[in-house]
Amino acid sequence: MEPFAYEKDCPGRQLLDRIGDAWSVLIVCSLADGDLRYTELAQRIPAVSPKMLTQTLRGLERDGLVTRTVHAVVPPRVDYALTALGRSLLGLVGGLLDWAETNITDVLKAREAYDSRI
Amino acid sequence: MEPFAYEKDCPGRQLLDRIGDAWSVLIVCSLADGDLRYTELAQRIPAVSPKMLTQTLRGLERDGLVTRTVHAVVPPRVDYALTALGRSLLGLVGGLLDWAETNITDVLKAREAYDSRI
Repeated sequence: MEPFAYEKDCPGRQLLDRIGDAWSVLIVCSLADGDLRYTELAQRIPAVSPKMLTQTLRGLERDGLVTRTVHAVVPPRVDYALTALGRSLLGLVGGLLDWAETNITDVLKAREAYDSRI
Repeated sequence: MEPFAYEKDCPGRQLLDRIGDAWSVLIVCSLADGDLRYTELAQRIPAVSPKMLTQTLRGLERDGLVTRTVHAVVPPRVDYALTALGRSLLGLVGGLLDWAETNITDVLKAREAYDSRI
């Protein structure tokens, strides 16, 4: 058993929360095929609010998973792209998304059974 | 691009948050080698508060990922175990934990660089 992330004040746990966060997963998966503008990301993930999209992108940029490039054009254009580190996450977060999609029916059934017991 | 979890009100996104949540990851990984009592889980994950451990276990049980078995002994004993569904998550959540451990140094460096820029 690795002590990593299990102990108090371990920064690894916070990182774990970042990479497993649903918005982060959806953003990283959206950038799999190449750079996207902010507005394109917003279109791909209709469920995300502008505030949450901005906040999650900033967190991903701060953690070195995503780059933000401002192009000096009028109107200004801002592109987001995965870094090599971000790209190394693709298989895992794509796997989480696939798992959730494959098993959502079973999970919803389990919830119904649980809620009917209590 | 799969629309799953990207749209508003999609239960898949909530499930994604559950399975990527750091406490869920640590609990599922802790149960990889077999059943554990509540107190054993608490010992394996010193960082988790009793309230958060109970709450996360209840969520995992409700989602059909973990079973909770109460043994009619004095004092009562409560065991937690992975279901087949929970076990099917092991590779993914173990992968997330490994990724975080492998890359935490790079992420901390990226954060330092980001914070020094702003």
